[in-house]
Amino acid sequence: MSQERPERKIKLDLALVHYPVCNKNGETIGSAVTNLDLHDIARASKTFGVDTLYIVTPFEEQRHFVEEILDHWLHGYGARYNINRKEALSLVQVCEDIQTLYALVTEKWRQRPTILATSAKSASGGWTYEMARQRIFAGDSFLILFGTGWGLTAEVLDDLDGLLPPINGRGDYNHLSVRSAAAVVLDRLTGRE
Amino acid sequence: MSQERPERKIKLDLALVHYPVCNKNGETIGSAVTNLDLHDIARASKTFGVDTLYIVTPFEEQRHFVEEILDHWLHGYGARYNINRKEALSLVQVCEDIQTLYALVTEKWRQRPTILATSAKSASGGWTYEMARQRIFAGDSFLILFGTGWGLTAEVLDDLDGLLPPINGRGDYNHLSVRSAAAVVLDRLTGRE
Repeated sequence: MSQERPERKIKLDLALVHYPVCNKNGETIGSAVTNLDLHDIARASKTFGVDTLYIVTPFEEQRHFVEEILDHWLHGYGARYNINRKEALSLVQVCEDIQTLYALVTEKWRQRPTILATSAKSASGGWTYEMARQRIFAGDSFLILFGTGWGLTAEVLDDLDGLLPPINGRGDYNHLSVRSAAAVVLDRLTGRE
Repeated sequence: MSQERPERKIKLDLALVHYPVCNKNGETIGSAVTNLDLHDIARASKTFGVDTLYIVTPFEEQRHFVEEILDHWLHGYGARYNINRKEALSLVQVCEDIQTLYALVTEKWRQRPTILATSAKSASGGWTYEMARQRIFAGDSFLILFGTGWGLTAEVLDDLDGLLPPINGRGDYNHLSVRSAAAVVLDRLTGRE
């Protein structure tokens, strides 16, 4: 793609949101942080040039859990055992809530980034992956939200700059794990063969 | 793409190989099947039109473990709790070893499919994702192998029809989880925006 500049740092952040998200019945809940989400999405983030992977949870013991994992892999035995994990997990930053997240990325990029999410239901704002990709490679800052559990609440989704299209494969089955969805979205936004 | 026929069933299988694979030191080992690999890769397989997800392990207790998981989600409480998981896990078939796997897919498609894997190192046989995608949509049968642990052994890789290119993102970090890699490869082979 002509607008790609592989040598140039892109301004792309990801956030894995644990509150507010929906449960199976559409009720608003806070979900638990899992070790594997952290590892898988950090590794994909490192692969595809993400600047920071924000882990959003208002629960103090959950944030403490993340900090313990990070400490192990960044400073403890894990850092010596597997340098690749250290590189990936060094992108992770813990954050209390969505408003703090928006303030952090706005301060970092000195302007509010374009904030998008994927939805299993439909796109909004006319976004395609190719459009977002072109703007990322043109130097614009982007924040992509991923909801855990059964997805971000309508309240969060309504407050975004738009929704990227659902990840369609072959047919109407649309139930990827958040780990798989994050990898595919990142590949579509910044990957190359 | 002109050769896509969304209404037509594609002949694409995946295999998640637990033996023979490498450990961190390059030694040949058998890895343990994990519940999450099964769920994540089955969901991605269902999304992207895979016919069968083969779980390859020579260890009887591991095959029994997979059968127990399948029984829970296909026939037990899980089948009523989450119909989406049932749909995904119904693609899973357990298999003893690579030779049995090759025999099964050859029998199923009445010819030996093109057998490929991805490698974190390099491509071989001149394969690109776009080439494989076009042949899949032209009706050719394909089997894609994914190695757990630190990847498939050289012995397995040397016996394939070729290697798909490493999943490149931004830079030279190339350490996706097998779950993320499978999702990205499937999206490149059969996904569409």
